[in-house]
Amino acid sequence: MKTFRINTPDENIRPALIDKINDLTKPKGALGRLEELALQVGLIQQTLSPALHHPCNVLFGADHGIVEEGVSFSPKEVTWQQMMNFAYGQRGGVNFLCRQHGFSLKLVDAGVDYDFPPQSGIIDMKVRKSTRNYLHEAAMTSEEMNLCLERGAEVVRRCHEEGCNIISFGEMGIGNTSSSSLWMHAFTGIPLEQCTGAGSGLSSDGIRHKYNVLKAAWDNYQGDHTAEEIIRYFGGYEMVMAIGGMLQAAELHMTILIDGFIMTNCLLAAIQLYPAVQAYAIFGHQGDEAGHKLVLDYMQARPLLNLGLRLGEGTGAICAYPIVDSAIRMLNEMDTFSHASVTKYF
Amino acid sequence: MKTFRINTPDENIRPALIDKINDLTKPKGALGRLEELALQVGLIQQTLSPALHHPCNVLFGADHGIVEEGVSFSPKEVTWQQMMNFAYGQRGGVNFLCRQHGFSLKLVDAGVDYDFPPQSGIIDMKVRKSTRNYLHEAAMTSEEMNLCLERGAEVVRRCHEEGCNIISFGEMGIGNTSSSSLWMHAFTGIPLEQCTGAGSGLSSDGIRHKYNVLKAAWDNYQGDHTAEEIIRYFGGYEMVMAIGGMLQAAELHMTILIDGFIMTNCLLAAIQLYPAVQAYAIFGHQGDEAGHKLVLDYMQARPLLNLGLRLGEGTGAICAYPIVDSAIRMLNEMDTFSHASVTKYF
Repeated sequence: MKTFRINTPDENIRPALIDKINDLTKPKGALGRLEELALQVGLIQQTLSPALHHPCNVLFGADHGIVEEGVSFSPKEVTWQQMMNFAYGQRGGVNFLCRQHGFSLKLVDAGVDYDFPPQSGIIDMKVRKSTRNYLHEAAMTSEEMNLCLERGAEVVRRCHEEGCNIISFGEMGIGNTSSSSLWMHAFTGIPLEQCTGAGSGLSSDGIRHKYNVLKAAWDNYQGDHTAEEIIRYFGGYEMVMAIGGMLQAAELHMTILIDGFIMTNCLLAAIQLYPAVQAYAIFGHQGDEAGHKLVLDYMQARPLLNLGLRLGEGTGAICAYPIVDSAIRMLNEMDTFSHASVTKYF
Repeated sequence: MKTFRINTPDENIRPALIDKINDLTKPKGALGRLEELALQVGLIQQTLSPALHHPCNVLFGADHGIVEEGVSFSPKEVTWQQMMNFAYGQRGGVNFLCRQHGFSLKLVDAGVDYDFPPQSGIIDMKVRKSTRNYLHEAAMTSEEMNLCLERGAEVVRRCHEEGCNIISFGEMGIGNTSSSSLWMHAFTGIPLEQCTGAGSGLSSDGIRHKYNVLKAAWDNYQGDHTAEEIIRYFGGYEMVMAIGGMLQAAELHMTILIDGFIMTNCLLAAIQLYPAVQAYAIFGHQGDEAGHKLVLDYMQARPLLNLGLRLGEGTGAICAYPIVDSAIRMLNEMDTFSHASVTKYF
């Protein structure tokens, strides 16, 4: 399986960063989360004057065999239709947010059950047309999982070569809240029922059915319960590519913006493989999907936003970008008491 | 006293706005607060395609007589020093946020105890050098209060003439959390102790002393308890100018971004005079000042952000601007199911 070299950022620069933040012309701590973000990105970039360059949102799309069991409110074809909408129309939710905040958008076909035309601009990294149905068998083979990690990492290396040092990940994959719920249950121990939610719009009966399917899949599972095995058995191609992308981003000391329920669980899975990856992650948004708050609490994560978004695509992460940008500007553009003629008031 | 003509927005356009939002290519409600904001601004602007133009942050500065009683951690001279820092250095907290989000910044001297040089660019609307000490007498006269309402309105009319249709208000005034606490107590009935907090950094002993001073001021008060009288007696010049500004903005059908504890209480006071003003207000940020959450709950307000900011200056409002911008872009830039080739999935 592909390996990564991920270390937590060197802590030696921390005291100097804290001194700089405390010398800015404001009461100590008065810029709250901006001060925490400035410290985190300063540590990641190992500088007192961090900068954000070429933000990028990588959106992985794939289909899921489990959809055969009726776990999703939306029909499967929405996956490819929305990918086409993002690519051609530029009028999806993720598109206007990318334009607004200057993100480049990379659309990646990780395993969509559709043949995209080459001129769509969708990057072809298709592993297979849809995962297998994990009610009966593993969603993917070990070879496919490894391919996902490698390809996710490859996309991120491309972004990095283009100058990107802050990256978000999004997904489009009807059925992927189901994989997320199973990973969450496996890695946190929180009862599966509390990990299972409405996805794109299930009724309470629909959620009950989804839970029964996932419970049966979990009960049928005969694997060895290692993290790698759980990821492979219940995963989605787009989700494992996101894991590969996150791990590569951490190895390259990039700042990672985490989107909603699905990407939070991808990070949770990535942490099982390389715990140090979390130091590079900023949680963008707490969504309304049942279970999201629980998994965030488990990870001791406090997302920057809580706007009730549940669209995926990276939208919650991108919405949080200007706050990270504010934190960096604070560090670089605010005056210091040492320099300004203001009585130090703390 | 200056009067305003403020009506709640015409509701006739509401169904068409809701239809448009629900036809966007996303599960119904999946963009959460963005959908609510799009509806609100659509109502304010009375159009299905609202737009934000020339955002402006008006920052009123003034000093407070009550500071003589030791209610503030920061010395009084910080008011003029910070105003100068905003004007000359352009390196205050509010400055980098205005630059980041394309806000023009208007600095207004409402009543600072300092003579600003004309070349500072600070708009001279000084009513008096500091309010009186309301432990012993009314903070301002009726004439001064009226002048504040008129001048606050005048600044907003200038912004509007320059094309601005979304405006935030900020303040710089050592001692103004004290006025805010008294207004909040008077207008909500919440016990004064729960309305009183640390301001720019008081210790628990400091907060106790501040509370004792405010309690004594409240007990000494012999006025008639009308809203106008409460505003006048315990107010600050910068705060009453902000009230005038908010009321003028509502009259002109502008969208108003509300900052932290002090500006929330200015809106609360404005609502006592003209309840319809609240329909024009978007709450930007819930700060850490004790009492802010309580007054927001009283107003049934759910701020967009909760980043632990407690700087004032308009910073919490400006930080929320990109979210409002996202909402408007959603309405104007997203595809509709009627138009796109996506199976309607809700």
